[in-house]
This record gives sequence, structure tokens and C-alpha cells, in this order.
Amino acid sequence: MKIMRTFDVEDMEDVAIGGAVLGTGGGGDPYIGKLMAQQAIRAHGPVKLIDVDELDDDALVVPVCMMGAPTVMAEKLPEGGELMRAFEALQKLMGRKVDAVICIEAGGLNSTTPFVVAAATGLPLVDGDGMGRAFPEMQMVTFTMFGVSATPMVLCDDKGNSLVLDTVSNLWTERLARAATVEMGGSALLACYPMSGKIAKQAVVRGTLSLCAQIGETLRDTRAKHEDPVKALCDLLGAQVLFHGRVADIERRTVGGFARGRAVMTGLEDHKGQVMHLDFQNEFLIAERDGKVLATTPDLITVIEADSGAPVTADSLRYGQRLVTIAFACHPLWRTKEGIDLAGPRYFKYDRDYQPLTTV
Amino acid sequence: MKIMRTFDVEDMEDVAIGGAVLGTGGGGDPYIGKLMAQQAIRAHGPVKLIDVDELDDDALVVPVCMMGAPTVMAEKLPEGGELMRAFEALQKLMGRKVDAVICIEAGGLNSTTPFVVAAATGLPLVDGDGMGRAFPEMQMVTFTMFGVSATPMVLCDDKGNSLVLDTVSNLWTERLARAATVEMGGSALLACYPMSGKIAKQAVVRGTLSLCAQIGETLRDTRAKHEDPVKALCDLLGAQVLFHGRVADIERRTVGGFARGRAVMTGLEDHKGQVMHLDFQNEFLIAERDGKVLATTPDLITVIEADSGAPVTADSLRYGQRLVTIAFACHPLWRTKEGIDLAGPRYFKYDRDYQPLTTV
Repeated sequence: MKIMRTFDVEDMEDVAIGGAVLGTGGGGDPYIGKLMAQQAIRAHGPVKLIDVDELDDDALVVPVCMMGAPTVMAEKLPEGGELMRAFEALQKLMGRKVDAVICIEAGGLNSTTPFVVAAATGLPLVDGDGMGRAFPEMQMVTFTMFGVSATPMVLCDDKGNSLVLDTVSNLWTERLARAATVEMGGSALLACYPMSGKIAKQAVVRGTLSLCAQIGETLRDTRAKHEDPVKALCDLLGAQVLFHGRVADIERRTVGGFARGRAVMTGLEDHKGQVMHLDFQNEFLIAERDGKVLATTPDLITVIEADSGAPVTADSLRYGQRLVTIAFACHPLWRTKEGIDLAGPRYFKYDRDYQPLTTV
Repeated sequence: MKIMRTFDVEDMEDVAIGGAVLGTGGGGDPYIGKLMAQQAIRAHGPVKLIDVDELDDDALVVPVCMMGAPTVMAEKLPEGGELMRAFEALQKLMGRKVDAVICIEAGGLNSTTPFVVAAATGLPLVDGDGMGRAFPEMQMVTFTMFGVSATPMVLCDDKGNSLVLDTVSNLWTERLARAATVEMGGSALLACYPMSGKIAKQAVVRGTLSLCAQIGETLRDTRAKHEDPVKALCDLLGAQVLFHGRVADIERRTVGGFARGRAVMTGLEDHKGQVMHLDFQNEFLIAERDGKVLATTPDLITVIEADSGAPVTADSLRYGQRLVTIAFACHPLWRTKEGIDLAGPRYFKYDRDYQPLTTV
């Protein structure tokens, strides 16, 4: 098996920054995942990254992740062993050794959590994930589009409780796992979506962990060289600047476990005199400038600090911040009918269709 | 193995009536469980009842039951196969054949649900249960007092979803199973508390299914012979009449999934001029006459129609009904410190101590 690269403790800084950029404002604080991953790498050694094509067709690949409300996850730290407990229980259930670990979402916290299991087990980590970004619900993965069942899923909490789910659909997995997670105190760690190498080669959004690392490296470089981070990021991601402005108002409410809201920004420089509205439900989902929709989920809308290029979550938006909103295209799978049904604006109860991102 | 008696389709009428009496106003409508049991007996033949002492020490005994809000359970009927699915999944998890089925609660709906599995599998049903009555929560069983873990527990819904729980305490099982049940639409069917014959002999409240049948027979007899059902029931149960009166007022609210409330009754005959207050949380928990507490949980408080002796649930209390409130002693295990901690008035957030039932 050809190893693409290895990730050591310091590399996790870059991955976490990249995960925050692909997190599009949601996905949980990558800081927690980074600490967990770094601790595991310190204890067990670096993580080997492989291309999905390196897997045998009959290999067993297992995603691991954290589930819960971002705000809870930042305050209620995992006890440490939950992720490994979930992974090992799923491996036992499958009745065979797992061959590789994979990310369920490259955006946010879960860009780094699988490093914990890869480091502890010595298993390779596949360079890719099931979203190419962050989404708030379990069924919103490319794996679903290829008929992969989210179950058997093992869910563990910090107290020592565990749950095995076996459901009739990935939407039911989301509902039952969400209810259990809430009862477990707002966060849980899980292993799920066991799949073959053959399916993984079709279903995985490829290269997203390398991309996370590259995003982190790029921002680090531009900072060192005093170059424009916004331009560097746009070049790397094929992204466009939607708006440059200041936060003028934020409206937030928690509805059904989501941090929903809308931010209003007033324009600066090229956008002077213009107004931007950003709708979010954990992630940024719709960007509208002067009443015209510019970008919609599942395309990626990310907000970064104008000076440093540092990604800003919807949670941490504050009055007066000077920010740049950028957008870039989602993976082509998300632009299919099935992808839009899973994660388009209407799923999030917005009364508008998906509008593929075009040149502004 | 000595069979004490067999239960056929028509016997289930008596068991269901007895279950309603031991249900102390809660425990779910035995009508649903009765229909399920009768259907299974029609399809597979009668159920064999055995004494717990007939079990080998290393026998594997498994309780099965329904969980959920009584009002939902009466309207959202099980699809039919859930209970068997739960039972078979637990049997598979245990890695060995189950030797006998048992009731988790002899009161209410679950006095009859285990007949479904006993009929379908041909396994004997143990004459006994884990409460000797009905209680609203999973951990409130004598099994808990003997260190039996509620898990592994398998929980199935009517849609085909299933859950396996493995928890650090029976209280956590209750919390997680309750959350899943709510998400599943308010009711679920489960197999849990797998235990050895050795433990069952210590932990089971004995003879409660025979008692259910006897209660039903007694009420049927008195009706046929135009005798006093209240007296017959009191003689059989060693119960005392607390109050004879009419429902004057009922206050109900749903708090945390419980049907909580208080009924006020005004006295008739011997109790003319007196007032009775009955507090309930699914089950009747505290009976107070003219401000004096007469009976408290875990002792059994049951309300029956004065004329027919038919048990009345807290749900079906209506203004103007002429009712007799009776009370009788719980199993001695419930009067220990551990029993009172599990199901005494303070657990239900009443600011008073358990007061063992004495002669009024």
C-alpha cells in the first residue's frame, strides 16, 4: 500500500484550519478534534494517509466522528476512549478487521477526529470524506447516495454508555442517534457507515484531507510572507469573493437543535453601499447581496477575516467584525437531484431552489 | 419441568383484568396487550406457566415488554413482529438459547405482552415479574435491587428500526431507551434484563401472573353470582377500602412524559362528608383523606368501579364516577431502603416519606 504522506503532531494545526474553512461556519470547533488527534499521535506515532484507490475492493472502511451541538462539544470534552470504544465495537460487530479509517466530514471538528483512531490502531486514513465540507445531519453524505447504510452504528458517551443502531434508513439513523446524543448530554462519539473498498472508491469525496492541510499551509505561508490571504485562498479553492464588509446585525435562535440565524453585513471597498445577508443553520447556507441570491447550499459559503484569512464560524460572528465572504463549488455529487434533495435549500426549509454558483 | 397451568385465548381476559388491578391506574391499557397475546396463542397454541423454582440455576431468563406513553400505546398499535424481533436479537446477542420468558411488570399492559413471545417460541413463562405491580420507569424493578443489568437491551419499533443498549446503570438505560422510544413515535417493544435462573429465584416477585388470572376470575365470579366485587377483591388481595366516593374534580398535566395530576373525590356511604385526594403520575401514588395520608407508593393504590369492581385507570377518571379506592401492601422488597429509593414518594418528587400501609 502506497502511503501518500504522514501526518505528525504539528501537521494537525494545518488540517484543523483547513477543516474550519471547509466547515463553512459550522461543523464544530476543530480545536477540540485537533487536541484529541495530537494527543493520539504523540502517544502512538504519525498517521499514514492513503488514496482511496489503494484499498482492495473487499477492504472494510469505517468512518468515525463526533456528533452533537457545536457549543456543547466545545465545553463537554470527550473522556478520551469513547471514539476507540465505538470503533472497536463496530469492528467486533462486523466480525472482521477494519482495513482503513475515513472522515465522515472534512469540514469542522470531524476533519481531525478520525486521526485519533488511525493513530491508535496504526490503520491508514483514507484521503477523502463523505461531504467535502460540513453538514449538520448524519444522512447528508455521499455515502447515502451510493446506498451505504449508516448502520450498524455504534454510539458511545463519556460515561461509558453505548448504543448500537440498526435502522431502516439513514434519516432514521439521524433521528435516533440525535435523540440519544441529546440524552447523553449533547455530544457522543461514533463509528458508522461501514463500507467496502469498492463502494468507497465511488462514494468518497477525494483528496479532502490533503486539501485541508494545503489550506492550512497556504494561510500560514501568506501570513509569513505578508501576502493577501483572501487571494491565496481563492486561488487554491477556485473560490470567488462574494462580499467584503462589516457585521452590522446578527439574529440568532436555536430551533430543533440547530443554531439558526441571519447575519447582515454592510459593504466595504468594492462593496461599499451594498448589503449582504447570510443565512445559517450551523453552516452558512444562503448568501444574498442587495436581495440577489449569490450562493446556496450545497455550494460552500465560507467567512474569513479580511486581514488574516482565518475562518470564522457562524457562532463567533460579532458586530463590527471586518470579514470577507467567499464561495466555491461543492462536489459534483451534491449537484445531482439526490444531492440537492439531501442538502439543498428546501431540505433546510428555505423556500428557494438550489442555484449553482456561477461567476459573480 | 413441571407446568403449573396453561393459558389459552379466553384466559387472557382474566389476566388483563388482573393486570389492570395491579396496574394501580397506570401501566398502559391491558386491552392492547391482551389482543396481541390472544392473536399469538391462536396462531401457536397455549402458553405454559412455570414456577421460578423450576428453572435451572444456569437457565437464561428474558423479560420482554412494551415501553411508551400509555395514550400513544393505545392508538399506535405494534406492527406485530417487533416483540419477537427484539427477543430474537437479544437471544442472538447472548449467544445462547433463552430458556424462559418473564414479565417485567405484572401491572397494566405488560402483564400480557410476554405471552406473545412465550406462545410464538413455545418457551415457558415464569409465574412472576419484576414489580408485582406497574411502575413508570425501566429501572424500577426488583431485578435492579439484585444487581441485574437492564442491558444488553434490544428496542424495536414498528418501522423496522432497532437499537441495542449497553449502559453503565439501569437509570441510564431508562433515560436512553425513553429518548429513543419518544423518537420512535412514542412506543417501542423490547427485550432486556437477561438473567440467570439463580438470580431470578431471588429477584422475581413470585406468583403475580397466577394472581392476575385469579383477580380476573374473582371479578367474573362475583358478577355472575351478584356478589360484592369490592369485598371479594379485598379478601383476595388483603386490601383495605380507603374511600368510597364520587369524582368531584381532576387536575391533569403532562410533565416530562408523565401524566401527572390529582383527583378529588367526595365521600359516599361510610365516607360521607369526607374528601379524598389521589395523586398520580401514570400510577396512583399517594392517597390522602381529609388531609391525612393513608397510602403511598410503592404500596398499591387501586381505583375500581363500586358496582362492577372493574379497575379504572388514572387516564379514564371522569367527573361524577362512583368509585372505590383500595390499597394493599407492596412486595417486601419494595419496603427496603433500596426499594423506597427506587420507587418511593421522594423519587417522584413528592416532599414526603414512604408510609407503610397499616390498618385504617
